Amino acid sequence: MTLYNHEYWMAKAIQLAQKGRYTTHPNPRVGCVLVKDQHIIGQGFHVKAGEDHAEVNALAAANPSDVIGATAYVTLEPCSHQGKTPPCADALIKAGVARVVYGMQDPNPEVSGRGLTKIRQAGIDVVGPILEADCEALNPGFIKRMREGLPYVRVKLAMSIDGRTAMESGESQWITGPDARLDVQRLRAQSDAIVTGIGSVLADNPSMTVRIDNDDQTTDAKNVRQPLRVVMDTALSILPEAKILYPTKQACVFSIEEEVEIEHLETLNKKGVTVRFVPRGQDGRLDLLDAMEQLADAGINEVLLESGAELAGSFLQAGLIDEIVVFMAPKLLGSNARPLFTLPLDSMDEAVELTLKSVRQVGQDVRLVYLPTYLDDDFEESFGEE
Amino acid sequence: MTLYNHEYWMAKAIQLAQKGRYTTHPNPRVGCVLVKDQHIIGQGFHVKAGEDHAEVNALAAANPSDVIGATAYVTLEPCSHQGKTPPCADALIKAGVARVVYGMQDPNPEVSGRGLTKIRQAGIDVVGPILEADCEALNPGFIKRMREGLPYVRVKLAMSIDGRTAMESGESQWITGPDARLDVQRLRAQSDAIVTGIGSVLADNPSMTVRIDNDDQTTDAKNVRQPLRVVMDTALSILPEAKILYPTKQACVFSIEEEVEIEHLETLNKKGVTVRFVPRGQDGRLDLLDAMEQLADAGINEVLLESGAELAGSFLQAGLIDEIVVFMAPKLLGSNARPLFTLPLDSMDEAVELTLKSVRQVGQDVRLVYLPTYLDDDFEESFGEE
Repeated sequence: MTLYNHEYWMAKAIQLAQKGRYTTHPNPRVGCVLVKDQHIIGQGFHVKAGEDHAEVNALAAANPSDVIGATAYVTLEPCSHQGKTPPCADALIKAGVARVVYGMQDPNPEVSGRGLTKIRQAGIDVVGPILEADCEALNPGFIKRMREGLPYVRVKLAMSIDGRTAMESGESQWITGPDARLDVQRLRAQSDAIVTGIGSVLADNPSMTVRIDNDDQTTDAKNVRQPLRVVMDTALSILPEAKILYPTKQACVFSIEEEVEIEHLETLNKKGVTVRFVPRGQDGRLDLLDAMEQLADAGINEVLLESGAELAGSFLQAGLIDEIVVFMAPKLLGSNARPLFTLPLDSMDEAVELTLKSVRQVGQDVRLVYLPTYLDDDFEESFGEE
Repeated sequence: MTLYNHEYWMAKAIQLAQKGRYTTHPNPRVGCVLVKDQHIIGQGFHVKAGEDHAEVNALAAANPSDVIGATAYVTLEPCSHQGKTPPCADALIKAGVARVVYGMQDPNPEVSGRGLTKIRQAGIDVVGPILEADCEALNPGFIKRMREGLPYVRVKLAMSIDGRTAMESGESQWITGPDARLDVQRLRAQSDAIVTGIGSVLADNPSMTVRIDNDDQTTDAKNVRQPLRVVMDTALSILPEAKILYPTKQACVFSIEEEVEIEHLETLNKKGVTVRFVPRGQDGRLDLLDAMEQLADAGINEVLLESGAELAGSFLQAGLIDEIVVFMAPKLLGSNARPLFTLPLDSMDEAVELTLKSVRQVGQDVRLVYLPTYLDDDFEESFGEE
């Protein structure tokens, strides 16, 4: 008989956690596997906020007498506090498991380690972290929000090989192929908010909704929620009938209060549109950091930025981008066409360094994921020189 | 016993042919495997022009009595004419092989099929083409030269993610990492000529030599020849001491005769530099098609274009680019930086469509190979609208 190790079972728990990819918001994705005598006797994952956590689902799926003396593999430290549901640490203790193997500690500095301590104090063996990086990768947004009070921001860019997103005129439809577009729908579905700029809204009047069908095997379509749609709109120029605002419960606009025409604001408010105000940033424009903090406060874990070069460049200059996802279409749009980021740099030592995280072919397009290297405080300073 | 099929043995012959990648110029890369009773009894490849062809090398490696009744697998139709060496078709007939399996016919329309006919007339079974596309991929330049009187032109581009090759000032050193740079050396080594523009020569004074060490396992360093170095220099502005001109036997400059200062020409001629004249093209600039025809006439199969955006754009607009090799560095150079191709286009339907041939990670860089889709005669016309 093959003896499987902790990593093997934790990998199973990670696979389970991933099933909650589109649905757990604002909670983290968590998976749990109960193992006894090298067999899974119960498994579960967190599906939706307000519903049971992964551990409780796994316990419910197991025969209670089997659970006594079993090992629980859970991707995230079991919670120790009463939330919408009772603490999972208590549930595991009560069920009589002999050992808890965890993937990562709770990222919330205020409660981190408490669940493990509680379990340990009940005389249960605690092992971990196991496959910590992989467990962290399940919840980049939740972790960043807990640790830094900010969401994890992915910028999605669709460009030609020569790094262009649209013609000079703005003409831009269908740069990438159908496989890449499906991939974008998945990125949207796993995001809590989609952010765009007023320029894109005025130009294209997009709805920015998630369109994922049941036949997409990675998704449980009935649980997919629509992410919050967010428009960065300094002077509140958005038209009351803009598609992106409806339904209004899932939309929000960020503006600078002094720049807003009060009548227009009232018109929008009457329609039920949420307008949030942010101060003016150092560059005189809408303070993106403040806006991101407001989103984090509202429980937004992952943001997908889908915008033009201008707003994408501003996010980058503000050091707010955590991940760049580039879809590169097999085309040349020419040297007059619009750039990827509006990013005025003068010398090579100002160039933004990135780390390649992954590359793969998606139809005839190439999907590249990069992480920016915000070296130090000098980063933002170097952008200040204009 | 496993019975191997024709494709299996032809793949072996292709592997052998690839060993001549850096050395057979201006001849094609050819491999040959002699098989009897499901075993290789002799194998060879063409190493260098003037030396024996693949078939002769394979026959020489085999025991002559084994060869009788054997099957010869050869990636290219055996030659039927007396060149620097005797015809290979005759050698195979004389050696007594029972069957010849070929990968592709001779691409030279004047002799194509003659070798096979000769062999067939000698009562030998002829089978093929087998793995034709793979055999063709061994010699894109030789084939294009034979069929169209033009070399196969690869353009090598090193760019940032935002599609930039250098800062606005021209500053550009070391965009890509060491693995990508080694890859470029391999591209150079397999090329018969490296073409660049006078702008790059004046800016950087490059030597454009192949630097491949013995420790590079894909190379037999002692046989690597230096490709011809070619400068596109309309007004003959090159300095007599430019590194790229030396040794002068491996260099050549293309200019337009009317624009050349006669004294400067004489100075260069005295140094032994070859200056070739080309007419003015439709766009008033150096006619690149004529230059490429001259290179093909001189036996140049594969050209590597290493230039700035201007010349690369002109080659593309002239429909002369067969393959685009992009090395993408994990950097953003910003929206002021220099473009990939100087290519002024106005609307999406003018966009140049490409086909993705391969993508792979090379260190922290990504290497992408694209083939342009020159749809029809309208392609060049669409560039004409200015």
